[in-house]
Amino acid sequence: MHSGVCSSESLVFDVHSALTPTDSALHGSEMPAVPRPLTPSERFDWLRLIRSENVGPVTFYQLLARFGSAAAALEALPEIARRGGRQRPLQVASKAAAERELAALKEVGASLVAWGEPLYPQALAAIDDAPPLISVKGQGDFLTRHCLAIVGARNASANGRRFARDIALQLGQRGLVVTSGLARGIDAAAHEGALPTGTVAILAGGIDVAYPEENRALQHEIAERGVLVAEMPVGTEPQARHFPRRNRIISGVSLGVLVIEAAVGSGSLITARRALDQGREIFAVPGSPLDPRCRGTNDLIRKGARLVETAEDIFEEIAPLLAVPLAERRREMFGTLPNGMPADQDLESARATILGLLSPSPLSVDELIRQCQLSPAIVVTVLLELELAGRIERQAGNHVALL
Amino acid sequence: MHSGVCSSESLVFDVHSALTPTDSALHGSEMPAVPRPLTPSERFDWLRLIRSENVGPVTFYQLLARFGSAAAALEALPEIARRGGRQRPLQVASKAAAERELAALKEVGASLVAWGEPLYPQALAAIDDAPPLISVKGQGDFLTRHCLAIVGARNASANGRRFARDIALQLGQRGLVVTSGLARGIDAAAHEGALPTGTVAILAGGIDVAYPEENRALQHEIAERGVLVAEMPVGTEPQARHFPRRNRIISGVSLGVLVIEAAVGSGSLITARRALDQGREIFAVPGSPLDPRCRGTNDLIRKGARLVETAEDIFEEIAPLLAVPLAERRREMFGTLPNGMPADQDLESARATILGLLSPSPLSVDELIRQCQLSPAIVVTVLLELELAGRIERQAGNHVALL
Repeated sequence: MHSGVCSSESLVFDVHSALTPTDSALHGSEMPAVPRPLTPSERFDWLRLIRSENVGPVTFYQLLARFGSAAAALEALPEIARRGGRQRPLQVASKAAAERELAALKEVGASLVAWGEPLYPQALAAIDDAPPLISVKGQGDFLTRHCLAIVGARNASANGRRFARDIALQLGQRGLVVTSGLARGIDAAAHEGALPTGTVAILAGGIDVAYPEENRALQHEIAERGVLVAEMPVGTEPQARHFPRRNRIISGVSLGVLVIEAAVGSGSLITARRALDQGREIFAVPGSPLDPRCRGTNDLIRKGARLVETAEDIFEEIAPLLAVPLAERRREMFGTLPNGMPADQDLESARATILGLLSPSPLSVDELIRQCQLSPAIVVTVLLELELAGRIERQAGNHVALL
Repeated sequence: MHSGVCSSESLVFDVHSALTPTDSALHGSEMPAVPRPLTPSERFDWLRLIRSENVGPVTFYQLLARFGSAAAALEALPEIARRGGRQRPLQVASKAAAERELAALKEVGASLVAWGEPLYPQALAAIDDAPPLISVKGQGDFLTRHCLAIVGARNASANGRRFARDIALQLGQRGLVVTSGLARGIDAAAHEGALPTGTVAILAGGIDVAYPEENRALQHEIAERGVLVAEMPVGTEPQARHFPRRNRIISGVSLGVLVIEAAVGSGSLITARRALDQGREIFAVPGSPLDPRCRGTNDLIRKGARLVETAEDIFEEIAPLLAVPLAERRREMFGTLPNGMPADQDLESARATILGLLSPSPLSVDELIRQCQLSPAIVVTVLLELELAGRIERQAGNHVALL
């Protein structure tokens, strides 16, 4: 986990000061240095903050770091958005809406797990856009185990589905929990194979929404014997834009991603691409060049993915990872954040400079910092304002784009 | 080609002296520095030397290097074998036998091509155990072009055979000559696909022996439109031990070897292994892990072979090789051979030392030289004696084993 130092106005993350006396100040922070449950009121504020307009995961953590608590961040939101150039007021999630969501979750037998809580998947916590809160239904303990993702074509061949089922079972028998996205084809087969040993289904919509319809019974069974996870609010019907977000969680909770049958340009390859960005291992099953469903996996192998014929091929590769206890993984996304907010006069000119450099094409934040020759603290602050104002969008790999 | 200096008793190969005035001395040698046809009497002596008992390719070239001509080597053979400990006289191929072989070749419409002659494949000339003479029947010009080998399972799937035929045609249309071994399955399909553009079949037996029976018509067609190559004497029925020797020629004439469907432990994988020793590119077509015929190719890919789905995948890899004219490839097998024979008294004790170090397990000649602490000239000479005496066997990769 990360370490940090709490001040009255901001939270400074500094892995180098982890064991200094000031570390004890952490216990007043909502970003737990060691896993601990949030208090009910903290969880309530976290829920309001992440459901507020224009607040994505990266912004969420930055707000928490700056203001020390979700409650303080909620108060500051409208003013930050205004400084970012927003005209109409930012919509902060209401207490009533948060109460409704919590009641609905209880109704469907699910619960909220927050980043850093004991049940929150440690591997997922290490990605920079980890969801601050996830809805969880089922055997939550599976989330604390080593996971491996299996994804692939919806229109999979009979052989592909059989392979997915068999290898999922073999991975499960050797202690891995199999993660997938509950899609038709490979995903469903992998979940089925891993049901006896443990499987995690990451849903694109709300935790109570059966999707796709043909996997309704399987989804129900996973809620009983495995575990369902959703980032979207309960009741959300899945939409196209939810799937890439879902995919980052599939790979995020996993040590690696095994792709079984994937056409060129398919969603499974996008998942593999994101998994690579997250530093996950990529595994792919080869297939005949005459089968278009194998083009994507063959291409992954050509580009360096590990060729997989048996579960043993996967274990050979991840053995070193299994030897490291999950709890020792560290989250280093923040590096060192500025202590206190930059002065107003510094931000004024910075806003114009940064807006001048941004465009609808994604630009990496690192590149932006290099080009604008401003301090990282100022750039991060201005981006926070602009995002809350709804003027920029954060994209994969720490990129930002003008909307 | 190599360069060398000829003396009355021995021929010293030294690539560093390639452009020195003494290079002109080469023209008196039977190892041509630039491609030239042998005289009929040289060819006759080469044939007798390579058909003599215990004379393999490596020994052949060493004898030629030491004695300057095959004729001189033939005279020296019995004495060298005797010094190696041979009891009964070495069987030197008779003039009558050589005459019979030449007549039989003429009878079947084939001819002999010697190492270094214009039609001898330049890539093949670069391997250390290149056949000194090959029987050739058909369109010999194909042997002067860039070749690519296609090999694979005899019990190939219909898809595998179709793939072999299609890619052979595509490679041919882009100027490559397709080489294979005329076996059932993948080999035959590759030859068929490449018939319109050019194909070379390397036979395990004699050039006139149809094998396997089911490919008799194809073999006949290749003799017309492509070219047949054989190392064994005309009339030789292929035996198990001939196939590995044949395989080294398939890869030897080629820039690379494409393996399509191969079970674990199959002959195609041995060809790939030898091809790697020869510095050739290895290409493999992936396939389903559920098909045992794909295990070998998948394994090659896992170990670094280039994954091939289309002819383009091959051209991407060999483009740099195609840019180098074949004539510029050099044969560096000899390095520098000793000038003149070592003294008898030096050899006497060396024989005991070297015999003491050898065993039925193959030992590399380099390792032997290190262990016995004798000069390379002495070791090479003793090995030559022992081989002609029938007491050791040369194996792939410059290894020797006690018989």
